[in-house]
Amino acid sequence: MTIHLIATGGTIDKYYSPTQGKLTFEGSHLPEMLAQGSCEIELELEVLMQRDSLDLTDEESSLILATCTQSPHKHILITHGTDRMVDTAKALKALNLPKTIVLTGAMIPYTIRNSDALFNLGFALGVVQCLPTGVYVAMNGKIFNADKVIKNKVIGRFEAL
Amino acid sequence: MTIHLIATGGTIDKYYSPTQGKLTFEGSHLPEMLAQGSCEIELELEVLMQRDSLDLTDEESSLILATCTQSPHKHILITHGTDRMVDTAKALKALNLPKTIVLTGAMIPYTIRNSDALFNLGFALGVVQCLPTGVYVAMNGKIFNADKVIKNKVIGRFEAL
Amino acid sequence: MTIHLIATGGTIDKYYSPTQGKLTFEGSHLPEMLAQGSCEIELELEVLMQRDSLDLTDEESSLILATCTQSPHKHILITHGTDRMVDTAKALKALNLPKTIVLTGAMIPYTIRNSDALFNLGFALGVVQCLPTGVYVAMNGKIFNADKVIKNKVIGRFEAL
Amino acid sequence: MTIHLIATGGTIDKYYSPTQGKLTFEGSHLPEMLAQGSCEIELELEVLMQRDSLDLTDEESSLILATCTQSPHKHILITHGTDRMVDTAKALKALNLPKTIVLTGAMIPYTIRNSDALFNLGFALGVVQCLPTGVYVAMNGKIFNADKVIKNKVIGRFEAL
Repeated sequence: MTIHLIATGGTIDKYYSPTQGKLTFEGSHLPEMLAQGSCEIELELEVLMQRDSLDLTDEESSLILATCTQSPHKHILITHGTDRMVDTAKALKALNLPKTIVLTGAMIPYTIRNSDALFNLGFALGVVQCLPTGVYVAMNGKIFNADKVIKNKVIGRFEAL
Repeated sequence: MTIHLIATGGTIDKYYSPTQGKLTFEGSHLPEMLAQGSCEIELELEVLMQRDSLDLTDEESSLILATCTQSPHKHILITHGTDRMVDTAKALKALNLPKTIVLTGAMIPYTIRNSDALFNLGFALGVVQCLPTGVYVAMNGKIFNADKVIKNKVIGRFEAL
Repeated sequence: MTIHLIATGGTIDKYYSPTQGKLTFEGSHLPEMLAQGSCEIELELEVLMQRDSLDLTDEESSLILATCTQSPHKHILITHGTDRMVDTAKALKALNLPKTIVLTGAMIPYTIRNSDALFNLGFALGVVQCLPTGVYVAMNGKIFNADKVIKNKVIGRFEAL
Repeated sequence: MTIHLIATGGTIDKYYSPTQGKLTFEGSHLPEMLAQGSCEIELELEVLMQRDSLDLTDEESSLILATCTQSPHKHILITHGTDRMVDTAKALKALNLPKTIVLTGAMIPYTIRNSDALFNLGFALGVVQCLPTGVYVAMNGKIFNADKVIKNKVIGRFEAL
């Protein structure tokens, strides 16, 4: 099994630029996270884009769907901004692909102390290896079906519908 | 589903005592790790012991087996020292319990920078929710059957037999 | 000797709010930093405000000056945003107070991995105990006179004029 | 001013070896610490040895003294294990060198979360630039004269005699 790991950006990949004085993107931290986890599973990492999901254009959303459709792999893990994660999950579900697709992300960037990034990435890498065909959101130590989940933005948690 | 999370100690739970000048135990860091992961899955956490697995007595090993046998839960996750993790996994497998039992741990304590603890805990929490009945080692982003895995102590990685 | 430690905010004290998705203030992290440094020197900590220095109003700037003027202590350490640190230092110097006043801050918030906050705070606490009367900026491991320093915003370093 | 920064090892420089399962030395982390502090002061870094101070031989202690004696620099900062820091400080004081010599270290290794290393290094770099000729221990945010300090091993703090 090879897992297609697709980075689209999101909070998980943000870093603090000292000269800009704000959080931004500089390239994905997924290689660093996988190294920290001493992860040895076979992966094809594709840094597709580095975008805050609130800023995703229609073209970018379409690119994510197309990338999953055309992927040669049956197991796909997407790191994604949490604000639109459910939207992308639903759009992927509508495609009805014969693949196991899992979306995850983080509420606190990997580069910030006390981040949930490493836990979530590990969690999602576990479920993507085990779950049957379908589209899932893997957050907060829980597995959600793509069409039965919302992000509660007040408390910053994903909840089953 | 409620996951029975059993802490037995191991590197994952070690901390540095400034006054003793060495790594030791002071109680499990699992609650802190679960909080960092914003983990919301239903768990029963049991801190059974805090032992370096190289120091496990026969009585302690028996206690781990008995705890799994008597657990009211069908999904059990054990945090364990890596040096004897495979031994405990094999002993559990021999019991042939109608449960999904996953063992994990860490090569670097959670309290040390660049630890694999959070990744491994997330990973194991993912697989324990998805796998069928059996005993598994979840390390290095890989799922191993209890009787088909060894720890390569030279490189500090788990490998399939 | 008691050091009057005045927190005004700045990058050093910012934290990432997971629900707001941005860096903001929630109260000073100075007590946590001092605890991490096992700092035992006698301090009076005053959290005067929590402001990005680019947002400092004239009233707030005046309040910082007044607080230093009225301080009963001869050794004052101010944590401050880096963008206006030199401005505040110059305004303090113009007051010609019979005190040792040191300003410091950070380019990366304390709550972010790889922050310079702890190093800078330690450094400034060292120099404020040793220097004669005057106003100084303590950044980048260097001590600058208030009227002979600029922040090079391109590289994020303080430089002597 | 160029500061002669002499690394002798000690807790500040220990790291956790995942394969050995214990804290050991692998070379000094001082370059990494100075980079994290964005330290720009002119330094000559000399990694003289990497030793737990409890293991210092007479030859090694003599080497530290000789290195300070022969140093071309008037400002010397020594990172040192805390258990014998006071002994080395006293031996240096007895040499009566026309230099400012400061000793520091850490109770928790730099590589461990919540370490005091960065704070202490910054603190010591501040005081070594400001103090007159003499030998000092810079720990816990306090400056001690070499012959008026002890380490309280029960609480892990340095105290004035």
